[in-house]
Amino acid sequence: MSEAKLTILKIGGSVITDKTGELAARTEVINRLAEEIQKANVKNLIIVHGGGSFGHPTAQKYGIKEGLKEDTQKVGFSETHHVMTVLNGLVLDALVWHNIPALSVTPSCCVVTENGRITYFEDAVLKKLLKTGFVPVLCGDVTLDDKLGFTVLSGDQLVAYLARKFDAGKIVIGVDTDGLYDADPKATKNAKLYAHLTLSELEKIKENLGGSTATDVTGGMLGKIVEILPAVGQGIPVAIVNAAKPNRVYKALMGEAVEGTVIEKE
Amino acid sequence: MSEAKLTILKIGGSVITDKTGELAARTEVINRLAEEIQKANVKNLIIVHGGGSFGHPTAQKYGIKEGLKEDTQKVGFSETHHVMTVLNGLVLDALVWHNIPALSVTPSCCVVTENGRITYFEDAVLKKLLKTGFVPVLCGDVTLDDKLGFTVLSGDQLVAYLARKFDAGKIVIGVDTDGLYDADPKATKNAKLYAHLTLSELEKIKENLGGSTATDVTGGMLGKIVEILPAVGQGIPVAIVNAAKPNRVYKALMGEAVEGTVIEKE
Repeated sequence: MSEAKLTILKIGGSVITDKTGELAARTEVINRLAEEIQKANVKNLIIVHGGGSFGHPTAQKYGIKEGLKEDTQKVGFSETHHVMTVLNGLVLDALVWHNIPALSVTPSCCVVTENGRITYFEDAVLKKLLKTGFVPVLCGDVTLDDKLGFTVLSGDQLVAYLARKFDAGKIVIGVDTDGLYDADPKATKNAKLYAHLTLSELEKIKENLGGSTATDVTGGMLGKIVEILPAVGQGIPVAIVNAAKPNRVYKALMGEAVEGTVIEKE
Repeated sequence: MSEAKLTILKIGGSVITDKTGELAARTEVINRLAEEIQKANVKNLIIVHGGGSFGHPTAQKYGIKEGLKEDTQKVGFSETHHVMTVLNGLVLDALVWHNIPALSVTPSCCVVTENGRITYFEDAVLKKLLKTGFVPVLCGDVTLDDKLGFTVLSGDQLVAYLARKFDAGKIVIGVDTDGLYDADPKATKNAKLYAHLTLSELEKIKENLGGSTATDVTGGMLGKIVEILPAVGQGIPVAIVNAAKPNRVYKALMGEAVEGTVIEKE
């Protein structure tokens, strides 16, 4: 029997935190998602979560994304990483509590970027964890950067990178809207949800995609889509669902019909 | 000017936690140590801390050190790692609060062992962190093991490994006694403190060294000494001081005279 192909689940920072606050986790949402992940019981799963009101405001305060310019930023780099580990700890707490053999894998320990793009990813341990039956949990993080000194690495870039590298079977992206709309659904009353998009359809409409309005140093919805396109181009389908609504993530993980947007190569 | 040689500071789990409790951190001690580390302002520093009442009881409960025998242990591996990240988070919190550019480097993401001994350590990012001026903070952790499936990695093994690999200038080990005694100072009234020991002197007396009485899956004081001997043999001096008493760690980091035991090759 061949092994199940890898599934990557991205959980947006706007889902598990209140982005209008600071360091404001939504622990009840984190717990519900852990329950859905436990119920789906997907073999060969990687989870990646965003920074929400943990990573983003701290990174912004110290200008981490723009790189190392002054020594005083160093402790800001440390602080940004530290607040991300706090959020990551809350996610792991819920997963372990739900009996999921999850293990945090910290990007700042094993990734190096160049101008913000991953050039080095030490994945020997990650592969072994998957093979042994663990669920690696990564998150948006700070990283050392060969050109900038350091910078911010988005969870979305990690998702696309891992999906392509490990030839994932699918990507599920949990966000705080029902999927992709032809206009920002929070600003436009009659915004229409796309149920299915091909890569070429998506290319045409991507400029109109609604962005996150709160602080997001890594680019909101458009940033997400731009990151994910190369994975779709490699034939990996992406389902974007509302993780703030119960059972959407569960159904997407199970491959069941669910409200949301599916993006496929053709 | 040549760069300062690496200093490795080990902080025992029995110092920063109450080992008679469970998940019982001594945050006031952690804060004082962060203050001492800030004051010493050592260039080129790695900090490693133990598991105390976080890692040890959890690892023991699931038999993690003995390896992967049943699927039900997997979530115990996750839980052991998770509680260690909680303790690590408290340490990082104090360090960052004291303006130290500290960054957690998680052994379970970058180390693989074989029968409990490190055979693979992905240190590219660790080296870069040191070079950029960060203070990497590691801790005892769980690791994947090529023979056992998984196991426990002691902070002491990490200290000796890193010291030898990076040719450290010195190792400072903070414990909860004043140093090495000719008998267990907690059990024997007139136990005598050794101020200085050479490697050959230590070899002769090591069987009499007092061990930690509380749960320590990684071997207590004798385990510590056995781990550290090869680093001493490579010419790296080790200072063992009481980190539970103010300013001992500070003085040892500064190379000042301080009560404790110094171990040197000759």
